[in-house]
Amino acid sequence: MQGYFITFEGGEGAGKTSVLKEIEKKLREEGYPVTATREPGGIEIAEKIRQIILEPSHTAMDGKTEALLYAAARRQHLVEKVLPALKQGKIVLCDRFVDSSLAYQGYARGLGMEEVYQINQFAISDCMPDLTLFFDIRPEVGLQRIAENVSREKNRLDLEKQQFHDNVYQAYRMLLEKFPNRIYPINAENDLATVTAEAYQKIVSFLR
Amino acid sequence: MQGYFITFEGGEGAGKTSVLKEIEKKLREEGYPVTATREPGGIEIAEKIRQIILEPSHTAMDGKTEALLYAAARRQHLVEKVLPALKQGKIVLCDRFVDSSLAYQGYARGLGMEEVYQINQFAISDCMPDLTLFFDIRPEVGLQRIAENVSREKNRLDLEKQQFHDNVYQAYRMLLEKFPNRIYPINAENDLATVTAEAYQKIVSFLR
Repeated sequence: MQGYFITFEGGEGAGKTSVLKEIEKKLREEGYPVTATREPGGIEIAEKIRQIILEPSHTAMDGKTEALLYAAARRQHLVEKVLPALKQGKIVLCDRFVDSSLAYQGYARGLGMEEVYQINQFAISDCMPDLTLFFDIRPEVGLQRIAENVSREKNRLDLEKQQFHDNVYQAYRMLLEKFPNRIYPINAENDLATVTAEAYQKIVSFLR
Repeated sequence: MQGYFITFEGGEGAGKTSVLKEIEKKLREEGYPVTATREPGGIEIAEKIRQIILEPSHTAMDGKTEALLYAAARRQHLVEKVLPALKQGKIVLCDRFVDSSLAYQGYARGLGMEEVYQINQFAISDCMPDLTLFFDIRPEVGLQRIAENVSREKNRLDLEKQQFHDNVYQAYRMLLEKFPNRIYPINAENDLATVTAEAYQKIVSFLR
């Protein structure tokens, strides 16, 4: 028996992390076997790789080095956590995966989506998500949400220029067009309850 | 003005590290501007990546994770050390480079030479070596040398099975056939002085 690999994607402030938590809870209540994760997912090797990426003193970090490190951490998280859960027949909900690298590093950072796809293809072999939910929100709306959320600690990406977030959004729209059978858009400008309901419906109808 | 990027490749016990030191000295004496290096080459980010690769407790390390980490360290070493030296017009002598990954990880570890080449191509962009010296020695002769050299600390690769080293050798022979304009074989079964002289001659005639 094989499980289902479902990834949550979108720009900053799209609410996907909150929705993922709600859906994990709902699926569990309904008796589905579910594993929620996000990279590096507590995997020691992946955590150490992430420390190198995030270390503020590493100002000399090249964009391609960073992309390769993300791919390495992704690989290890996949091998140690995602694949074993899928083998056990679990529904794996993963907050961000390969599409994030394509949108952020491939397109918005200008490394090339095709090039970043190739190294990620090496990293994940044929383990592409069965279903990807794209939380579709205009960047300015997402950023406004973050600005209003005082409890959320701003990370490096939140502070990027508007143009960067516009590029990320554009990249996700391109991916949506390219993989219409895998990526499903969710209107993320609605309130949390509505977004959660739509995402939950999509997942459950996919599982049936 | 651009420099020259020259890499030294070969299996264990081929003597390339000793020859590289001799050649660096000779070239310097002749007035050539030369930089000798090897990955990770003292580059902080690359050193930290290497620590993750070599940490003995990381028994869960996947082969592809390792290959991506090597490519990441290579990228950073290239950007921070090799490219700046080449821009200054230096002759850069590098102990192992992309061919090592192709031979050891791509072929001997079975990840696929083509696949490992692709992630390395991403890592190095178009910065392939101008000249690669392949120190050609039968694996059993190289391993015998290592076994006799009590001062040399055995590393993880020295302790691999004979079959592994045979595969590495076979991979280098394949690369030699595939890149006859870039890779030049040196008979490394001769004594150090003879091997050094042949390698030096090749480099100097290449520089002229």
